[in-house]
Amino acid sequence: MNAKNKKILLIVKKIFAKHKLSSNHARISADAIINAELVGAHSHGLSRLKMYCDRIKKKVINPTPKIKIKKISQSISQIDANNSIGFVAADIGIKQAIKNAKKTGIGLVGIKNSGHYGLSGYYAEQAVKKNLIVFCFTNAPPAIAPHGAKKSLFGTNPICFGTPTSSKIPFILDTSVSVINRGKIRVAAKTGKKIPEGVALDKFGKPTTDAKKALTGVQLPIAGFRGSGLAWMVDILSGVFTGGNHGGKVKDPFDDFSGPQNIGHLFFVMKPNLFVGNYSERIKENIKRIKKLPKIKGVREILYPGQCKQLRYKKNINKMINIPANIADDLKKLNA
Amino acid sequence: MNAKNKKILLIVKKIFAKHKLSSNHARISADAIINAELVGAHSHGLSRLKMYCDRIKKKVINPTPKIKIKKISQSISQIDANNSIGFVAADIGIKQAIKNAKKTGIGLVGIKNSGHYGLSGYYAEQAVKKNLIVFCFTNAPPAIAPHGAKKSLFGTNPICFGTPTSSKIPFILDTSVSVINRGKIRVAAKTGKKIPEGVALDKFGKPTTDAKKALTGVQLPIAGFRGSGLAWMVDILSGVFTGGNHGGKVKDPFDDFSGPQNIGHLFFVMKPNLFVGNYSERIKENIKRIKKLPKIKGVREILYPGQCKQLRYKKNINKMINIPANIADDLKKLNA
Repeated sequence: MNAKNKKILLIVKKIFAKHKLSSNHARISADAIINAELVGAHSHGLSRLKMYCDRIKKKVINPTPKIKIKKISQSISQIDANNSIGFVAADIGIKQAIKNAKKTGIGLVGIKNSGHYGLSGYYAEQAVKKNLIVFCFTNAPPAIAPHGAKKSLFGTNPICFGTPTSSKIPFILDTSVSVINRGKIRVAAKTGKKIPEGVALDKFGKPTTDAKKALTGVQLPIAGFRGSGLAWMVDILSGVFTGGNHGGKVKDPFDDFSGPQNIGHLFFVMKPNLFVGNYSERIKENIKRIKKLPKIKGVREILYPGQCKQLRYKKNINKMINIPANIADDLKKLNA
Repeated sequence: MNAKNKKILLIVKKIFAKHKLSSNHARISADAIINAELVGAHSHGLSRLKMYCDRIKKKVINPTPKIKIKKISQSISQIDANNSIGFVAADIGIKQAIKNAKKTGIGLVGIKNSGHYGLSGYYAEQAVKKNLIVFCFTNAPPAIAPHGAKKSLFGTNPICFGTPTSSKIPFILDTSVSVINRGKIRVAAKTGKKIPEGVALDKFGKPTTDAKKALTGVQLPIAGFRGSGLAWMVDILSGVFTGGNHGGKVKDPFDDFSGPQNIGHLFFVMKPNLFVGNYSERIKENIKRIKKLPKIKGVREILYPGQCKQLRYKKNINKMINIPANIADDLKKLNA
């Protein structure tokens, strides 16, 4: 990271510390936010900093949580995050899941009383870097209408899966089950840009390309009832199963300060060599075979999930993070 | 089940026994095939019986397998199915996963050297009936082109998730990552019907509604790179991870008798009360909240995944299974 970006990282850390996060928690949170900027997920980066601080001020994020880790078995742990900022709960959670998996082959961690944790792929990457296969599930405030309904209830509920690849670039699938992610619509609304057709309905159930109307309306799940079913599955795994909120009860972090979000996360981690001795060769062969396929016109290389992000990261790591004027303003005020 | 359907079940069992399956394995296989008919998944039912028998005759399914179950830990087991018919490998696998989960809270079973096992939902249901949450993954012969490729490589690779609901009807999401499942295209090809637009490309990469052309061409994944990523994930979990074939190497059971399929399956099962004491109430509340949402025009009830299938099953259980002439012919010949 170049000196200028390091400076931004330190400012973010300082802002969190000013909002009473411990030095360690401030570092974890700042790292996650800057990482989102560096991988090009601006909707999960600095644009959310003010929201996190607002929630701390309004006492719906607990800056000094007493996080409890309960051992269910050698493989299974439960975490009550005591309404911590989501980054911290998720960081502790994935590290616990990794620890359990290193010990027993599999690690399952359910987290409740957490908040929005940023990008699932960020936590998946931690496990993959320790040579583990990983699933991350989290739910989110209502954004997608269940199939047949005209009101949002599911979050964009990402499905995230990661595996080592035997190369330096991990395979990280991190896909929301909405056609595009809500953060992108939010950025479009902020910058006055249009969103593609077929992505959302307005509050009256009519198709719209107006990002602001889409935010008060309904986002469409991928593939109709299939995407709706996947979103429902994620709500069950991360909410119903862990003890977190579910069924549309996760509050919008930007608009609803009436209480903590109580988001749930579920992390499941496995050693890749549980059933085969040569996983690393097998995954290498798998990727090689797929990359070798004849390509459609205009495609130079078939990329696996996570490669695009890694390319963006490499490109951005030594460039200055681009901060829009309104967000620079937020930073200045928060750091005042 | 009515007497006539019981008679068909017995005929199927007898046919498998004639093809050297043990009485127990013949029963398991016949049950799975008749269940597919009763839930309306005709593409996974009697229309496949001749294929299974052909594969036994040509020695690419082993009718008298020596199936090895290896204990990796209290929670984890590996099964080498010795090229058994897929139904039997999957039946043993899901029972082992259930056993492990009942003992330790979670059960993970990887199966290799298996074959096409029919419907994932059928095995998921077994776990749900024992009050467990379940994932089933399996890969399949090439049918979907990876995003950016113009040649099929991924199977329709279903994602299957099940949970108890506190009602008699389980929540079973069993969704292929192709726009429609390959079996349906196959049935359309057999009956000369057209398939919907946007579902497949012909072998030259052009959109087609001709089912026969689609079978020699490329099926489209749901949601572009998202669906492609999910299909890749399933190939890794059920193939690379378990020791099964992967990367496009699973043979088409209908067309390729040059060797066993060596399909891999992965079953993951969890107790629902690992993190909460009242899962049953929580899931009931979750479903209730979603069903209560305002509905779009023409929708009477918001159904959860699995409800439709259960309704079809209830309707079909006392009706005579409809057997098209060509399949009746197969049955007669196989039973001769």
